[in-house]
Amino acid sequence: MTEPLFFERVAIVGVGLIGSSLALAMKRHGLAGHIVGSARSQATRDTALELGLVDSVAETGDAADGADLVVVATPVGAYAAVAAAIGPRLKEGAIVTDAGSVKGMVAPTFAPHLPAGVQLVPGHPVAGTENSGPAAGFAELFEHRFVILTPPADADPAAVAKVRALWERVGSAVEVMDARHHDKVLAITSHLPHLIAYTIVGTVTDLEDQLSGEAAANGDSVTQTEVIKYSAGGFRDFTRIAGSDPVMWRDVFLNNKEAVLEMLGRFTEDLTALQRAVRWGEGETLEAWFTRTRAIRRGIVEAGQAGTFRATEPEDG
Amino acid sequence: MTEPLFFERVAIVGVGLIGSSLALAMKRHGLAGHIVGSARSQATRDTALELGLVDSVAETGDAADGADLVVVATPVGAYAAVAAAIGPRLKEGAIVTDAGSVKGMVAPTFAPHLPAGVQLVPGHPVAGTENSGPAAGFAELFEHRFVILTPPADADPAAVAKVRALWERVGSAVEVMDARHHDKVLAITSHLPHLIAYTIVGTVTDLEDQLSGEAAANGDSVTQTEVIKYSAGGFRDFTRIAGSDPVMWRDVFLNNKEAVLEMLGRFTEDLTALQRAVRWGEGETLEAWFTRTRAIRRGIVEAGQAGTFRATEPEDG
Repeated sequence: MTEPLFFERVAIVGVGLIGSSLALAMKRHGLAGHIVGSARSQATRDTALELGLVDSVAETGDAADGADLVVVATPVGAYAAVAAAIGPRLKEGAIVTDAGSVKGMVAPTFAPHLPAGVQLVPGHPVAGTENSGPAAGFAELFEHRFVILTPPADADPAAVAKVRALWERVGSAVEVMDARHHDKVLAITSHLPHLIAYTIVGTVTDLEDQLSGEAAANGDSVTQTEVIKYSAGGFRDFTRIAGSDPVMWRDVFLNNKEAVLEMLGRFTEDLTALQRAVRWGEGETLEAWFTRTRAIRRGIVEAGQAGTFRATEPEDG
Repeated sequence: MTEPLFFERVAIVGVGLIGSSLALAMKRHGLAGHIVGSARSQATRDTALELGLVDSVAETGDAADGADLVVVATPVGAYAAVAAAIGPRLKEGAIVTDAGSVKGMVAPTFAPHLPAGVQLVPGHPVAGTENSGPAAGFAELFEHRFVILTPPADADPAAVAKVRALWERVGSAVEVMDARHHDKVLAITSHLPHLIAYTIVGTVTDLEDQLSGEAAANGDSVTQTEVIKYSAGGFRDFTRIAGSDPVMWRDVFLNNKEAVLEMLGRFTEDLTALQRAVRWGEGETLEAWFTRTRAIRRGIVEAGQAGTFRATEPEDG
C-alpha cells in the first residue's frame, strides 16, 4: 500500500487488549485523526483516557456518531447490543469492522442494524497475549501476525481494501476467507486448544488438595504448589492460554458452538483410541501416533510460527 | 555441598538428550574422571565420541564394569535389559541412578539384578527440550530445574546424599518423594499434558486435508498449511511437547498406565462437563470455570516457572 490511508474519526468500541493496541498502533502509524473509545464501565473509560490510548471517551452510540471507521473490539456476546447502539448513529460511507474470534455470526448480527451506505468488513487479528484490559495494550501487538477478513459476498471492494490496508499498516499479513471456513479453522487452531487447556488446568486445581494430602500422609515434604513446581514437565504449556479472558472465551464457545463441538468430537474419539492403547499396552499404536505428530511440529517451526518474536508471546484469537 | 564430590569412573547408559547433557555437565563441573557412554546403536556411540560427550564408548555391560556411578538414561522400556546387562558387572559400592520420567517401576525392575553392596537411587530431572539424541545435549540443561529422587525405604543415606549432591552441582534443586506419589504428580503435570498434546496434533493432521478441500471449493486462497499458519491462536502451545521423542513417551505411558488412566478419567469427565455447557449454552458455567483457571496460571507465573530462563524452553519429564 502506497496510497494515503487516513481515517478522520475512528471509534473503538471496547478498549481491552485488542482495542487499545489498535488505537496505539493507528496513532503511531498516523492512520487516524481523532480516536474515540467506548467501554461498558466508567473505570475502563477513565483508564483508557489516563493512559492516552484514545483522544476521548463516549457512550457507544455517541462514539459511532460521525465516525469514518468503527472497530468493534468487545467480546462477541456484546455484538447485538453494540449493533443496536451504533446502527442509528452511523453516517453514510462509514466502515464497520471487528476483531472477534468468531466470524460467522458477525454479518447476521450487524446487518439488521446497519443503514444503507455503511460497509461491514468483519475481521480477526490472530494475535493477543494472556493479559487483558486497556493497560495490556501495546502498539506492536499486530506486527508479524495474521489478520483474517471475512467480508460478505456483497461487500464493497473499496471498503475491504481500506480495512486490509489498515491492518497491513500496523504490521499484519492479511488473508481473506469465507466466514464459516474461518470458524472451522479457528475452532481447531484456537478454540479447541483453549477449551482443552481450560479443562486440564481446572482438573489439576481440583487434584491438588488430594495429592497434597497423600504426600503429607507419606511424610513427603511437599506443598500444595507441587503441581505448579513441576509444571515445566509439560503442564505449563497449557496454563498460559488458560489464563485468557474468561468472558471473551465464554462468548467464543457460545457463538461457535457447532464447529467447536465437531472438533471436540474428533478430538475425544482420538483421545479414546489412545487411552485404549495405553490400557491394553499397545506400544506400536502409541509410537506410530507420536512419530506422526512430529511432522506437524516441524512444519510449524519451519513456518516461523514457533519462534518467539517478542517477549510477550502471541496467544488468543 | 562443600565436601568434595568426584566419581572416578562414570557409565552413562543411553547418550540421548539427558545422558549427553549430564556427561557434559559433569565434565564441566569436574565431577567425573572417566566417562564411558553406551548406546544401542553404533551410530549413536560414534556421534557421542565425535562430539566429545564421553571419553569412551562400550557395550552396556562393559561400561558398567568398574564404574563408581552408573546413570541409566534410556527410555524406561529398556530398563529390564539394562539391569540384566549391568547387574553382573557392578562392583561393590557402585551407585546406580536413572533419569526416567516414571519412578514406581525402577526399583522392582533393577532390584532382582543388583548385587549386594550396590545402591540404587532412582531420579528424575524435570528438564528437557523437544529435541532428542546425543547432538541435542548441552551442559546447562539442568540449571534451575527440579530433580526428584525416589530412593527406596532401605536406601543408603550416603548414596542418596551423593546423588543429591551430583544434581545440585550441575545446577538443579533436588526434592525427595515417594515413587508412587511421583508417578501421580507427574501423570498430571507431564504425562497427561503430553498425551493430550499428541492427541490434538494428530487430530489436526487428519483434519487438514478436509479443510483444504472445503477452502478450495469456496475459492479461498488457502493451502494445506492453513492450520500451521494460524497456530498462534493457541494450537502452537500444544505442538511443542508433541514433538518429543516417540519411544521415550511410548514407554512412559506403558509404564505409568494406572496413574495416567486415572488422570485421563478425571480430565475427560471435566471435558464432558464443559462440552455439555457449550452445547446447552450455559455461559455462567463456562465463565466460572475459566475464571477459576486464571488463579493457577498466576501461581505459576509467580513461582517463576513460566518465565523463559533460556532460549530453549524446558519440556519433557
